[in-house]
Amino acid sequence: MKLSNRAQKVPSSPIRKLVPFADEAKKKGIKVYHLNIGQPDIKTPAVGLEAARSYKADVLAYSHSQGIAPLRQKMSEYYDRYGIRLDPDEIIITTGGSEALLFAFQAVLDPGDELILTDPSYANYLSFATSCGAVVKAVHTSIDEGFRLPPIEKFEELITLKTRAILVCNPNNPTGYLYTPEEMEQLRKLVLKHDLFLISDEVYREFIYNGKPYLSAMNLEGLEEHLIMVDSVSKRYSECGIRVGALVTRNKEIRAAVMKFAQARLSPPIYGQVVAAASIDTPASYMAEVWEEYKSRRDFLIEGLNRIPGVYSPKPEGAFYTMVRLPVEDAEDFCKWCLTDFSYDGATVMMAPGAGFYSESGAGRDEVRMAYVLNKEDLGKALVVLEKALEQYKTVK
Amino acid sequence: MKLSNRAQKVPSSPIRKLVPFADEAKKKGIKVYHLNIGQPDIKTPAVGLEAARSYKADVLAYSHSQGIAPLRQKMSEYYDRYGIRLDPDEIIITTGGSEALLFAFQAVLDPGDELILTDPSYANYLSFATSCGAVVKAVHTSIDEGFRLPPIEKFEELITLKTRAILVCNPNNPTGYLYTPEEMEQLRKLVLKHDLFLISDEVYREFIYNGKPYLSAMNLEGLEEHLIMVDSVSKRYSECGIRVGALVTRNKEIRAAVMKFAQARLSPPIYGQVVAAASIDTPASYMAEVWEEYKSRRDFLIEGLNRIPGVYSPKPEGAFYTMVRLPVEDAEDFCKWCLTDFSYDGATVMMAPGAGFYSESGAGRDEVRMAYVLNKEDLGKALVVLEKALEQYKTVK
Repeated sequence: MKLSNRAQKVPSSPIRKLVPFADEAKKKGIKVYHLNIGQPDIKTPAVGLEAARSYKADVLAYSHSQGIAPLRQKMSEYYDRYGIRLDPDEIIITTGGSEALLFAFQAVLDPGDELILTDPSYANYLSFATSCGAVVKAVHTSIDEGFRLPPIEKFEELITLKTRAILVCNPNNPTGYLYTPEEMEQLRKLVLKHDLFLISDEVYREFIYNGKPYLSAMNLEGLEEHLIMVDSVSKRYSECGIRVGALVTRNKEIRAAVMKFAQARLSPPIYGQVVAAASIDTPASYMAEVWEEYKSRRDFLIEGLNRIPGVYSPKPEGAFYTMVRLPVEDAEDFCKWCLTDFSYDGATVMMAPGAGFYSESGAGRDEVRMAYVLNKEDLGKALVVLEKALEQYKTVK
Repeated sequence: MKLSNRAQKVPSSPIRKLVPFADEAKKKGIKVYHLNIGQPDIKTPAVGLEAARSYKADVLAYSHSQGIAPLRQKMSEYYDRYGIRLDPDEIIITTGGSEALLFAFQAVLDPGDELILTDPSYANYLSFATSCGAVVKAVHTSIDEGFRLPPIEKFEELITLKTRAILVCNPNNPTGYLYTPEEMEQLRKLVLKHDLFLISDEVYREFIYNGKPYLSAMNLEGLEEHLIMVDSVSKRYSECGIRVGALVTRNKEIRAAVMKFAQARLSPPIYGQVVAAASIDTPASYMAEVWEEYKSRRDFLIEGLNRIPGVYSPKPEGAFYTMVRLPVEDAEDFCKWCLTDFSYDGATVMMAPGAGFYSESGAGRDEVRMAYVLNKEDLGKALVVLEKALEQYKTVK
């Protein structure tokens, strides 16, 4: 009576594994600044909250497995704003972007099949791939090069007969990197040349700070049958808790397969769908304010980090994360120490150890991922705490 | 560029595959009585609906991956009423019972591993097992024996070195059968003898009509490390759409593994959890009324069915489904015909073809599954329509 191999192999979330230590610190009355998790403090749009309050139903029944029609219609109008023309039928509503990832992997990956992505990556890609029995191969991107895409040959070198798909996250979590049109074009050609699927995670499309236009993989020519886009309203409208995302593809065969998985789990959550549909109508001023807020947090955090001796962060162009190099050998040990053995002025800081975002063993050991989802006052305090922590850690380790 | 084997193998839901034909019928203005799906028309408890309306939050944030503490606490109090003593920490809140099944399968089944269940079974067991690459082996139960558990030797015959778990649904969907204490004891011994996991789906525990006490697998001695209970609030409180279920186990190793899967998908839906937590406080009179209603629907439907020439249904003891034998060779063809070529007095009936609930090929071809989730007036009309349909079908086929 032993657990499955997949259960043994699935990694613990690097974002969550230090949670017990943070809980201990809080019990001791220490204030913990959470830079570890992408839980925004931004308010959910009022229209979304109001939609849940005023939702009228006597019976909270199953919704359609593909998602309620009004939400798919609204999503299609939303994509229109980005020049992505989609029929509501090409959109499958999922229980968060997480389920869209799971469905995409299940649809194209069998045990032993290979998925190529970039290192570092959103850690849960590895969890979902492992739970599918698939093998992840990673193209290394480097903090010293601002995590830009390496020459496309690096991807090609990894392609074998078992390669089924390439996965990109754009704008990128955890690096904040935004793919250039040239990089996208190279990926497009590669996918077509080797007849692969491209899975494009675009949940941060609203958050691009360098003035460059957003280029969705959905708008790359000739990829209609190859592309699966993963999306979510979680970050866009600060409604991570409602669990609403989408799997979007023009490939009918994939949609038919995904609908079988979707029917097995019956339906996405009804309240979340109601909130999400209403949120798409939130005034443009909401998104503009949120964008300004994140942009100024980014500028504030990155400048502050790079002022701390030995600390380096490239300037992320999008999303709301950054990978930061710290002057420590083992960032996981340092992150844990911050929670268990350190506080300054009654406070400490929680960060996600960088190694957990790399599939390559040993990579990113001196890095951490930070999310700039706190307000600037808290970010400022967190920076002070981090600087003091690094000073003190040096003396005790 | 082809889909995964699992995507090709996952069966279409037998409940849903006729939906396009039902949609066509409705477009023609025909009233369709839905006996095919377990979507109750019973009202959701007022306290549950009110909890969603009055939920106050500025930010709809991720909840804990294990589920919000108040809900796990309430669930533990709920189980207490059934003599099941559980610490809230032994309860992992899932996105519907569906996700609890997926997590349970992922935790104990690797590709090629075998799961034993009874035929007929809830069709999505097969979907989730297939998506995990596992192999389902079925012990046949028969309509002529009221779907009672066959001699335990039938299970033992199927056990191989690859067998990892036995799955039971009690009270049973789709048969309505309730396992006797003797049968449970035999299963207990078998699981211990062969060192297997027992997955017990108990989402219909409230719905037992024969006066027998409910015996949860959680109360079988010595199974602490072997048992995974799957639960859901969907049917109990008629809130299928909120997607809240639970995976319950005293086995710490399993919980640790399941929490890794749970963390990868971040959290269960927040509104659903709030509604579910409140619903557990719904007055006992609500459950009593619901129980009375289902019981009288059952009596009405089964009596009516057995009065139609050539139709036979055993009397289900629990849940709100029954497997019905029809005087036709191919029930799927008949079910489809009812939607495409038949109506009586402007109405027709939709049923789930029985074969989809059997993993054994060719079994259940003259059976359908019916859910008695409609009120008696509608059930009465559906019975009339069914009788007329059978008469007419005989003359055209």
